[in-house]
Amino acid sequence: MNEFVKKFVAVEKPWTKQEFEAQIRGVGPVQYHDLHPFHKALHGGKLNKGQVAAWALNRYCYQEAIPRKDAAFMSRTHDRELRREWIHRVQDHDGIMPDETGGIERWLVLTDCLGLDREYVTSMKGALPATRFAVEAYVRFVVEQPLVVAAASSLTELFAPSIHRERIAGMLANYNFVNDDVMAYFKRRLSQAPRDANFTLEFVKDNAHTRELQQACVDAVRFKCDVLWAQLDALQLAYINGMIPPGAYRPDGV
Amino acid sequence: MNEFVKKFVAVEKPWTKQEFEAQIRGVGPVQYHDLHPFHKALHGGKLNKGQVAAWALNRYCYQEAIPRKDAAFMSRTHDRELRREWIHRVQDHDGIMPDETGGIERWLVLTDCLGLDREYVTSMKGALPATRFAVEAYVRFVVEQPLVVAAASSLTELFAPSIHRERIAGMLANYNFVNDDVMAYFKRRLSQAPRDANFTLEFVKDNAHTRELQQACVDAVRFKCDVLWAQLDALQLAYINGMIPPGAYRPDGV
Repeated sequence: MNEFVKKFVAVEKPWTKQEFEAQIRGVGPVQYHDLHPFHKALHGGKLNKGQVAAWALNRYCYQEAIPRKDAAFMSRTHDRELRREWIHRVQDHDGIMPDETGGIERWLVLTDCLGLDREYVTSMKGALPATRFAVEAYVRFVVEQPLVVAAASSLTELFAPSIHRERIAGMLANYNFVNDDVMAYFKRRLSQAPRDANFTLEFVKDNAHTRELQQACVDAVRFKCDVLWAQLDALQLAYINGMIPPGAYRPDGV
Repeated sequence: MNEFVKKFVAVEKPWTKQEFEAQIRGVGPVQYHDLHPFHKALHGGKLNKGQVAAWALNRYCYQEAIPRKDAAFMSRTHDRELRREWIHRVQDHDGIMPDETGGIERWLVLTDCLGLDREYVTSMKGALPATRFAVEAYVRFVVEQPLVVAAASSLTELFAPSIHRERIAGMLANYNFVNDDVMAYFKRRLSQAPRDANFTLEFVKDNAHTRELQQACVDAVRFKCDVLWAQLDALQLAYINGMIPPGAYRPDGV
């Protein structure tokens, strides 16, 4: 942004909370990853088992990053109440000692059922480099951006329940290698994601006081959509178009 | 370290676990802050209420930093089991939603009883700059050092139970403005600190594989002792010797 534009943006008056929320919610219909051809193929039953396995293996990298980015978020705030609220996100993914296994473990039930070796999955060695780059860009974003903007980047959860519902229905209907147990991750997220998203939406609306910060929050939601979209793009090229990069997972017989 | 010394250290063979543990435990008797004159004065009943208040107000900054540094630690590891174990440290200080208040809240009960305004305490505006610098140096250390070295810096907890026991007994015996409720923070730490310290000690012994890393872990314990000592030095100059810097807390009538 050049200096002239920057000043111009800075003096624009803030959106009302309602306008601001509409801007945030407006991002989903334009660029959330439920619009991606790979997503449509996945839940439409158009993929073979190897392609679903490639998706699950790559998406593991994303799951694995979530508690790290949420812990990083917590490490950045002096607000104890905010940390007390935020911590359950880490626990949703990591589980709770000694017996609650958590979302990452539920994800590994899915990769198990797809015939993938756990050590191979958790090593992340077979994941596409583009997946890892996108995921780590998200972690760095949360480490480096203003706190309210970092929080806003999780607001793609506003759009998640519908994709999870579609996915559960679509995958159960279309793939004989997928059963109810395996979809446990997504079923749990149906209740977790809206709770998190609502809290964050209120936090962001209350704390982005300038138009510039509000705009940065909307851009953060777009950025996060880019992170999700880029992961599906990489899967598309590698596992639909067949250009699997050196070292990446190759389904049997490919 | 110059290049020659560095190479020399790198080829030294690792200490056995027993030798390594002895090196770590050896730091306490030499430089843990229970040796500091201010600590001796505090638990020996030699301070007036204003001096105890200055200590509690400054020490709040340290308490407040602990969950941030522990969340930062968690954000740095890919090891889910390690995060699952570590998370209770954040909860020990922040408490757990909705009803468990946690160590920082217990600390504020202490500052309440010393007649300090909560907002003033939590703003940290009256704290000595040297306190804030020392505390933030600790947070940065945990963010920046190799993970095992970052973990080792918490091993001053090995030396904490005896100081907490002394402090409970000494403060209850010597100050009529201190009662059992107020000492709740330290009583809780009597059981929390050893559990944490034992876990960390095993983690550090298992994961510092080279002599160089082992040495860095011992140095991390020394560094942490420096962080604690520097806080008492600053209190000594300001509130024993009377050189209170501009802007810092001034007890009534000083």
